[in-house]
Amino acid sequence: MPSEFELIGRYFARPTPSADLGVGDDAALLRLAAGHQCVVSTDMLVEGTHFVAGTDPRRLGWKTVAVSISDLAAMAARPRWATLAVSLPDDDEAWLGGFASGVHACCEAHGVELIGGDTTRGPRNLCATVLGEVPTGQAVTRAGAHEGDDIWISGQPGRAALALARVLDGTSADGSLPAEFLEALEAPRPRLALGLALRGLASAMLDVSDGLLGDLAHILERSGVGARLIDGLLPLRALIDSGADPRRAREALLGGGDDYELLFCAPVAARRRIVSLCDAVATPLHRIGTVVAETGRLELALDDGRCHPLQPTGFRHFTGEKADN
Amino acid sequence: MPSEFELIGRYFARPTPSADLGVGDDAALLRLAAGHQCVVSTDMLVEGTHFVAGTDPRRLGWKTVAVSISDLAAMAARPRWATLAVSLPDDDEAWLGGFASGVHACCEAHGVELIGGDTTRGPRNLCATVLGEVPTGQAVTRAGAHEGDDIWISGQPGRAALALARVLDGTSADGSLPAEFLEALEAPRPRLALGLALRGLASAMLDVSDGLLGDLAHILERSGVGARLIDGLLPLRALIDSGADPRRAREALLGGGDDYELLFCAPVAARRRIVSLCDAVATPLHRIGTVVAETGRLELALDDGRCHPLQPTGFRHFTGEKADN
Repeated sequence: MPSEFELIGRYFARPTPSADLGVGDDAALLRLAAGHQCVVSTDMLVEGTHFVAGTDPRRLGWKTVAVSISDLAAMAARPRWATLAVSLPDDDEAWLGGFASGVHACCEAHGVELIGGDTTRGPRNLCATVLGEVPTGQAVTRAGAHEGDDIWISGQPGRAALALARVLDGTSADGSLPAEFLEALEAPRPRLALGLALRGLASAMLDVSDGLLGDLAHILERSGVGARLIDGLLPLRALIDSGADPRRAREALLGGGDDYELLFCAPVAARRRIVSLCDAVATPLHRIGTVVAETGRLELALDDGRCHPLQPTGFRHFTGEKADN
Repeated sequence: MPSEFELIGRYFARPTPSADLGVGDDAALLRLAAGHQCVVSTDMLVEGTHFVAGTDPRRLGWKTVAVSISDLAAMAARPRWATLAVSLPDDDEAWLGGFASGVHACCEAHGVELIGGDTTRGPRNLCATVLGEVPTGQAVTRAGAHEGDDIWISGQPGRAALALARVLDGTSADGSLPAEFLEALEAPRPRLALGLALRGLASAMLDVSDGLLGDLAHILERSGVGARLIDGLLPLRALIDSGADPRRAREALLGGGDDYELLFCAPVAARRRIVSLCDAVATPLHRIGTVVAETGRLELALDDGRCHPLQPTGFRHFTGEKADN
């Protein structure tokens, strides 16, 4: 059975030209660009909680790093390095080879170098920390939304939740689920180019990991504002076209987690520049509402002019249940 | 059942005056001192692999952060921030309260601020990433040992291994095990003051997590040298006085992991200054051998003048077995 050091050497140690010291010492040494802040995010993926046993290991490797890269994208920060700690139930080298190839593919696709970590035995648990940099003062936090700002969402939220429902009921492989829905769940694409392009444009931003409404509520709380979403602007069509009934499509769009789309606010004056980004970063962008003054207010404007209050239904990883919070 | 956000707010969110942005956004924002490198280390502790079920949660919280702080100490770097990802089987708040108090105690004792992390459900798994800084070029790596250097070890390696044996055979609480042996295993004290004081003195350094010989072999490999340990200089007395028979005491000293003592090399010319550090940092230091030219050579000089070859018997976390490597 290979030792921890042999496994690290075989699967995880790669050249790290942008680090002063990478894998193989007590700690890694990095040098940040002058005038930049260091940006750090950690995420843990647990078998049985965040993914089902039997998930394609290459996709899982991709996702393990992607979710933290997405956090840095949501700060308008450039990811540069990652550490990876993995606990594995055995040394199934075929699994580990696939997993590592996914980790490296995601790192390479986003300019990230794997600089350290830990490999140990135990129930399958994957924990990545991604470090990056942003020019000092230019990070986009959750706290900057203002009354009157537009509310935008990237791409197609809801796909991962619909895919998860099909994985759990065993019908994800029957051919009726569009491949990109399963990919949204298993190998999400961090919206890095978009996040970087929104530096200086977005007033507040986060990535949707717990559901659009639940995550929007975080922006509202931090910014001390409210939100009115406009029903006719919600990007429901692609979800319904995939075969989901309209009610489930709406639930998936507003409450489903794990899509890692960027949800952001921006002044109306930036609208034209944001629309022009869609082509530049090859990502659909949907303007779905408006920031209102009243703190914590969350409502949906229907086509007939009425307003319907919304509950921020976030996905709770810890309880594994949907809950109003 | 409290949500992930409630748990984080209750147990982990604390003021972080030295971070530009701490817990509660997509990522943390940090500013490093000019002319410094960023130093990063990640460690994962898994129930059943690194600690037994029922371990005191406060001590476990301490150790979760301490092992990565120890890595930075071994680079002669100052730890400043930590992220913490935890997977827990249930929301036993008494356990979580004790664990968090240990995390915060260790952070405060070492000038570290908890700036982010992840809380999720699953088999108990604790993963800390510690970030710090070191003046550029002044980190002490594993690669700088030279022929003729002294080899030093801090404190009392072997205590954790002897305590672990007593925990596993159920006799750790019978009163015959000195309390500091169990503490060495369950709540190790990172040798941070020593590590910082050795900046500019030590030629190579690491912390002993996998066993003195196994970790010494890492220095030898990285530095391209060998080592001759001197039997009469090995700090065996305290282990034997604790009741361990001489053979087990020697095995624990040379092969036992988890003490987090600092093992370092330094020129003979630095010997007097290093001895004077013992008082300054309140840590015993033992000169136990000499660096020799031949790469990978590892031997023990006996009192009668003979030399005995040694095997670098490291502890393998991944296999859970001792193995020559």
